[in-house]
Amino acid sequence: MRALVTGGAGCIGSDLAGRLVKDGYEVAVFDNLSSGKQEHLKELLKNGKFRFIRADLLNRKQIGDACKNIDIVFHLAANSDIKYKEGDPTDEDLRLNTIATYNVLEAMRVNGVKKIVFTSSSSVYGEAGKIPTPEDYPLRPISLYAASKAACEAMIGAYSSMFGVQGWILRLANIISGKSRKKGKTVLTDFIEKLKQNQGELEILGNGRQSKSYLLADDCIEGIITALNKSKVELNIYNVGPEDFLTVNEIASIVTEEMGLKNVKFRYTGGDRGWPGDVPRFLLDTRKIRKLGWKPRHNSKEAIRISIKNLLNKG
Amino acid sequence: MRALVTGGAGCIGSDLAGRLVKDGYEVAVFDNLSSGKQEHLKELLKNGKFRFIRADLLNRKQIGDACKNIDIVFHLAANSDIKYKEGDPTDEDLRLNTIATYNVLEAMRVNGVKKIVFTSSSSVYGEAGKIPTPEDYPLRPISLYAASKAACEAMIGAYSSMFGVQGWILRLANIISGKSRKKGKTVLTDFIEKLKQNQGELEILGNGRQSKSYLLADDCIEGIITALNKSKVELNIYNVGPEDFLTVNEIASIVTEEMGLKNVKFRYTGGDRGWPGDVPRFLLDTRKIRKLGWKPRHNSKEAIRISIKNLLNKG
Repeated sequence: MRALVTGGAGCIGSDLAGRLVKDGYEVAVFDNLSSGKQEHLKELLKNGKFRFIRADLLNRKQIGDACKNIDIVFHLAANSDIKYKEGDPTDEDLRLNTIATYNVLEAMRVNGVKKIVFTSSSSVYGEAGKIPTPEDYPLRPISLYAASKAACEAMIGAYSSMFGVQGWILRLANIISGKSRKKGKTVLTDFIEKLKQNQGELEILGNGRQSKSYLLADDCIEGIITALNKSKVELNIYNVGPEDFLTVNEIASIVTEEMGLKNVKFRYTGGDRGWPGDVPRFLLDTRKIRKLGWKPRHNSKEAIRISIKNLLNKG
Repeated sequence: MRALVTGGAGCIGSDLAGRLVKDGYEVAVFDNLSSGKQEHLKELLKNGKFRFIRADLLNRKQIGDACKNIDIVFHLAANSDIKYKEGDPTDEDLRLNTIATYNVLEAMRVNGVKKIVFTSSSSVYGEAGKIPTPEDYPLRPISLYAASKAACEAMIGAYSSMFGVQGWILRLANIISGKSRKKGKTVLTDFIEKLKQNQGELEILGNGRQSKSYLLADDCIEGIITALNKSKVELNIYNVGPEDFLTVNEIASIVTEEMGLKNVKFRYTGGDRGWPGDVPRFLLDTRKIRKLGWKPRHNSKEAIRISIKNLLNKG
């Protein structure tokens, strides 16, 4: 099997690429390095079954060429900066997610590639009336990021139905790892950076009571592979996440503890959410993927602690 | 109230523009005349409260300028040709629906326009497991057209949540009228044109057993106005359609009968649907909008007959 991994120089993509090589795939990573880093691929680049393509999904010729002689696309590339703040451009999600995904699907169609694995997001549910939220719950995105992920899912469904492309859509909890990226801070890299600047005070976006689920990249990749290997209908949609959530306040406490800091004053920007379009509380119902035999090795709290330790060791 | 109607030279848009002028709005129609016709606006152009802007939604400056001093946008412009056939470009729905709608929303945000009415489609539900299908049923589009409508809905939800834009999303049954357009045949104009060419035989796409709902443009416009005037939450989503459906075979029989033709042989292209991405059977659950006091004056069968008569009278 020959796999193309878009966004493959990112935190999840680079680990996924490594896993695929280990599983016997020939792997090409397609990344423009806007937020991914080539250093994440350092070891892989020594492997004869791996190659790196530095190119851009908004260039139709480049993705068209990359899809030649490929059996499956793992499409992870996306806008990495999901926090909207006033003055930010509003078309990033449209361009980097919706249009980029169309370009991937069309390149696949033209080149006869019949399988796509897509990393969607728990955010597509918006402020769901049912928590934990199952896969058949209606999508009601409240951010441009989430809207674009829903748009990508819909296009994958259309290519599946119209052109026989088989799709795996994974709606992921917040994925964290010990790796960092150039753009698009996670709550962890945000807190660590701020605390390195100022050990006495930590600015927390929102009121600190937002509750979210966190999953380590390793567990996420195991979930992706499980869904791909064990679910074989035309369109396979799975939530991937842990069964618990943490508040932002709890995360802030773990970060300060792991950094050995005491008496850090938490300062809140206020409001029930971190930024316009932020979903204050989510928890995925993951019974569907658990029935396939997957379960994460670590819950949210463990994942947060492991990830912080890794980030601090590197930084 | 100053209204902008995109796609306002189309079959629905031109009647809606007339209705809005009658209701006291100042109305500007924004249309590139790719499928709409200026002749649909002939009477309106004599009215001092009406103006026509020939411009394109893919030109951000043009839609930006048109949104100045506007209170509400009725966004009807869309790709009118929903039947995909092999060799057709696959990016029309992305460009003319998804990107164009982003441009409208962004022009609204920049100019402080706080209300949008959007004509979505019954097709967003795809092949729903529940018929009639209610508004809170999950969307599972199976065509690029439907995927783009779902994408537009999601972006409207995001602008609503992030930027305080109030939205009315109307998921419409097949809308028919006595007007015709330059591009994008309906089943009626398709049948009439074919029977004018050849009175002995009629080619029917699919197996003729596809079952769909049809609503006259008048009834549709009344539904849009009802939702707008009586439903006032941030995001107002309503199905708009009749309570019955017709098969394509029944429509073919009515067309031949109204044209006074006998012994027309029906020839089928085969398969359970008319084209890749066609939804073979749909019926909207319209209890939600009926609770607001709306109901169509005509069911599907009456609508079809009235529309055929109008089209034949003009042709």
